[in-house]
Amino acid sequence: MDLKAYIRDVPGFPIEGVIFRDITPLLRSPAAFTHALDALEAYCRPKQPDVIVAIEARGYILAAPLALRLGAAFVPARKPGKLPWKTIREEYQLEYGVAALEMHEDAIAPGQRVVIVDDVIATGGTLNATRRLVERLGGTVVGMACLVELTFLNGRSALEGAELFSVLTY
Amino acid sequence: MDLKAYIRDVPGFPIEGVIFRDITPLLRSPAAFTHALDALEAYCRPKQPDVIVAIEARGYILAAPLALRLGAAFVPARKPGKLPWKTIREEYQLEYGVAALEMHEDAIAPGQRVVIVDDVIATGGTLNATRRLVERLGGTVVGMACLVELTFLNGRSALEGAELFSVLTY
Repeated sequence: MDLKAYIRDVPGFPIEGVIFRDITPLLRSPAAFTHALDALEAYCRPKQPDVIVAIEARGYILAAPLALRLGAAFVPARKPGKLPWKTIREEYQLEYGVAALEMHEDAIAPGQRVVIVDDVIATGGTLNATRRLVERLGGTVVGMACLVELTFLNGRSALEGAELFSVLTY
Repeated sequence: MDLKAYIRDVPGFPIEGVIFRDITPLLRSPAAFTHALDALEAYCRPKQPDVIVAIEARGYILAAPLALRLGAAFVPARKPGKLPWKTIREEYQLEYGVAALEMHEDAIAPGQRVVIVDDVIATGGTLNATRRLVERLGGTVVGMACLVELTFLNGRSALEGAELFSVLTY
């Protein structure tokens, strides 16, 4: 199945000069969505994760069905102020300024095996911040996975040796 | 299975006097998460939806695995500026001010049967705005479903006769 046929190129979003890879046509096709999940599951299952950590917001769309297939816990990494209970926070650089992600303190138990999931890897900043959150809680990141990798942004090299699986590369 | 045992009460979030119903413990339990999805699927399947519309962000967590179980399209209703292609927008009232949701113009084909999914129904404003988006695109809302209904906020009465299923009520 040619999954790239289900990715829509949108030139000029969010800013001039960028081609945005829109995954909504893929999500509208149950066959294509299932096919993408099959690939993510095939990567994740041998790693025997206890937890799938999902990065807000589009990471949820892939990570929720993936966690259920694997019988793993679903844990969200959220934007600041969204999680109601006790949280820890990690910041990461944007092109202009700083952003942050938070996780609940009880989201991961020490020693649990964790795969981190997002829809797109660009510069790798959010994946790295999420990895730091997981490690602060005592979890072991056994893998990272995404649907789309924008290779020209070199996000993979920013992951400091962590393993990354991507279903599609551009 | 007592799903309420997996909902954490957080008093004083997001503001003093409110008890927030935190669903993250439920999402961490594959058995509880599966049980909640079973209930949502049992409601949705007889309605034969073509599309599950998911409200950003926590609605995605329930709607993605639900859409895959049903063989339906997954369509997100997103906060303004997030969707890259041509969009339509509907506004809704907050306690102070106005918020909005957007959908892609091609997200739903005329005549398609749609179930709208979110995690929590409070005042019903986001569900109503999403219903207007679906109807502007020619879709037919055959149901609405959520995990948690806060009955004291009377969101159900704001839905103007649309059917609502909730797994848990408070």
